[in-house]
Amino acid sequence: MTSTVPPTDHQGSTTTASDGLLHFPPSSALALEPHLPPPTLNPNSSSKPGSKPFVTLTFATSLDSSLSLAPGVRTTLSGPQSKAMTHYLRSRHSAILVGVGTAVADDPGLNCKILSPSGLGKGVREQHPNQPRPIVLDPSARWKVNERSKVVQLARLKQGLGPYIFVTREGMEKVTAERRKMVESVGGKFVCVESSLDSKGEAEERKTTGFVWEDVLRTIREEGLDSVMIEGGGSVINSLLTLEQAGGQELVDSVIVTIAPTWLGAGGVLVCPPRAIGKDGQPAPPVRLRDVSWHPLGEDVVLCGKILR
Amino acid sequence: MTSTVPPTDHQGSTTTASDGLLHFPPSSALALEPHLPPPTLNPNSSSKPGSKPFVTLTFATSLDSSLSLAPGVRTTLSGPQSKAMTHYLRSRHSAILVGVGTAVADDPGLNCKILSPSGLGKGVREQHPNQPRPIVLDPSARWKVNERSKVVQLARLKQGLGPYIFVTREGMEKVTAERRKMVESVGGKFVCVESSLDSKGEAEERKTTGFVWEDVLRTIREEGLDSVMIEGGGSVINSLLTLEQAGGQELVDSVIVTIAPTWLGAGGVLVCPPRAIGKDGQPAPPVRLRDVSWHPLGEDVVLCGKILR
Ligand SMILES: NC(=O)c1ccc[n+]([C@@H]2O[C@H](COP(=O)([O-])OP(=O)(O)OC[C@H]3O[C@@H](n4cnc5c(N)ncnc54)[C@H](OP(=O)(O)O)[C@@H]3O)[C@@H](O)[C@H]2O)c1
Ligand SMILES: NC(=O)c1ccc[n+]([C@@H]2O[C@H](COP(=O)([O-])OP(=O)(O)OC[C@H]3O[C@@H](n4cnc5c(N)ncnc54)[C@H](OP(=O)(O)O)[C@@H]3O)[C@@H](O)[C@H]2O)c1
Repeated sequence: MTSTVPPTDHQGSTTTASDGLLHFPPSSALALEPHLPPPTLNPNSSSKPGSKPFVTLTFATSLDSSLSLAPGVRTTLSGPQSKAMTHYLRSRHSAILVGVGTAVADDPGLNCKILSPSGLGKGVREQHPNQPRPIVLDPSARWKVNERSKVVQLARLKQGLGPYIFVTREGMEKVTAERRKMVESVGGKFVCVESSLDSKGEAEERKTTGFVWEDVLRTIREEGLDSVMIEGGGSVINSLLTLEQAGGQELVDSVIVTIAPTWLGAGGVLVCPPRAIGKDGQPAPPVRLRDVSWHPLGEDVVLCGKILR
Repeated sequence: MTSTVPPTDHQGSTTTASDGLLHFPPSSALALEPHLPPPTLNPNSSSKPGSKPFVTLTFATSLDSSLSLAPGVRTTLSGPQSKAMTHYLRSRHSAILVGVGTAVADDPGLNCKILSPSGLGKGVREQHPNQPRPIVLDPSARWKVNERSKVVQLARLKQGLGPYIFVTREGMEKVTAERRKMVESVGGKFVCVESSLDSKGEAEERKTTGFVWEDVLRTIREEGLDSVMIEGGGSVINSLLTLEQAGGQELVDSVIVTIAPTWLGAGGVLVCPPRAIGKDGQPAPPVRLRDVSWHPLGEDVVLCGKILR
């Protein structure tokens, strides 16, 4: 209940190596291990094709639950140790996922800059050999990804993988041949997420709600990716938490939230799910975590837990 | 940076004694000590009449910064250990303060139910002998305090002190003789907060902003109270944080926030200050804490710090 990730240093001198790569101490990594996908997923169990990937929901907020001061305003919330932790977490997942809002607003790199093998055994990804696959949820293909996009540049430099951009069938039609080729030239692709609602004649509903999460997770699994770290932004996190609150869908396996000791104030991008209605038609009880542990890390705290069902 | 309040038990069997009184272990109390008013304030220093009392800002929120599901909906956020901590904190302050919104919505007891002396030396308040003085900020005297109000009942039973109800000059005129007598019969009173704005001809401004905090703190000091724990609710906390953000007024000495591992969702009473404008007319930087420590306590975490200036 009170296990603690030993902090490295205050200013990050041991956190960031001279080449800009990050270091996350094995002792800290060990404390997170119970909350991460098994280093080698057993091919006969959860990694069988068609089943759900292991899903870790992770993000950093202020005390007033803001992800950033405003959409598109890059906001440094957490300290160097927390940044190193995020990159360590990326090294432990096959894929990392953000919504198109984040891709457009932040032009994120979505690679893993962790320096050294953590020594935790097989399946742990090191710097270059095992980068996570970036996934961007972009139903209507509105992200103007191009040669200057950071994720493309990093993939060209072999410091990250090309992005998988998840679109609807309608979205796919809008992707130009030029853009598709550019993305494919760095090992990425546009992936059509087939909608389970179409077959049920509920296509109209989908249009207003973005992707259905089961469709997204099934598609990730079909791409041979057995674990995914969902990083944001606000809409993606809130829609996932609302689903979990409504019950019936057990999508998230692990939650890792970093909290920084600051109040960003009104007007930020909030993690604050709309209140869900349960299966019985009544307001659902709030989402609560179980098996909770809190790990002070520099000036921040890291909360690990599972969703109480 | 990583000091930890040793948790007591999970279900609170050692937290709550058979007589309903709470127990907060001395080891946990010791970890909080650096964040509390000195046990015996030196009469020659900060407790000299006219100077500001020691101010501790303390409250419990969800991960999405809600104090409660909705105004008036009592929401159990934090666990039994955190509750014991709140009552321990009350034992260490001369006064506890809430806004009239909380008084009306919650009918709070505002007493201290801590069981045993903590053994931390002189000035530490034990169960009955040293209850904190409840203060309610009620500018226009709209709280219908009566014999059935919990704070009055507890004062009658000598399990708490009668409330000091802070009103404006205009508010005072609305207080009936009957109500005044009732409050005085349990050792409480209505206290007129003289406005520093009146003398500056800015009375109009005051009407829209509630009390000016310096006036409140000066009045507390004039009542012979040398420390105050500000507990809520949302409007009171947000106005104080906004003032601190705007700079120039160093009102809060210590911040102690308990965070529970749950998302209450949209629609709650939020701690989320409106963004302040600094003295230079520019948007002020967010309020950040320094000298931060995080203390896991049961399923919750307790954040202690000071406002970075
Ligand atoms: N602090 C952190 O840890 C962190 C991490 C990531 C991002 N952020 C911040 O978050 C902000 C962006 O957040 P955002 O809310 O604007 O955008 P977002 O959550 O990144 O993207 C939302 C978009 O994703 C698409 N989408 C597809 N399926 C969805 C589903 N099931 N649920 C929700 N969205 C779905 C929709 O695109 P369409 O509208 O085209 O349908 C939706 O508008 C940025 O300011 C960024 O800095 C912070
Ligand atoms: N979780 C916790 O730790 C915790 C603790 C306390 C309360 N709460 C919750 O908070 C909620 C109540 O919050 P609230 O925002 O409605 O009310 P509040 O903050 O308790 O009271 C606000 C009122 O106080 C008066 N006031 C006087 N000077 C003020 C100033 N400088 N700044 C702000 N207010 C001033 C104003 O009264 P007039 O309008 O008459 O001018 C104002 O409307 C309840 O749901 C309660 O359960 C939770």
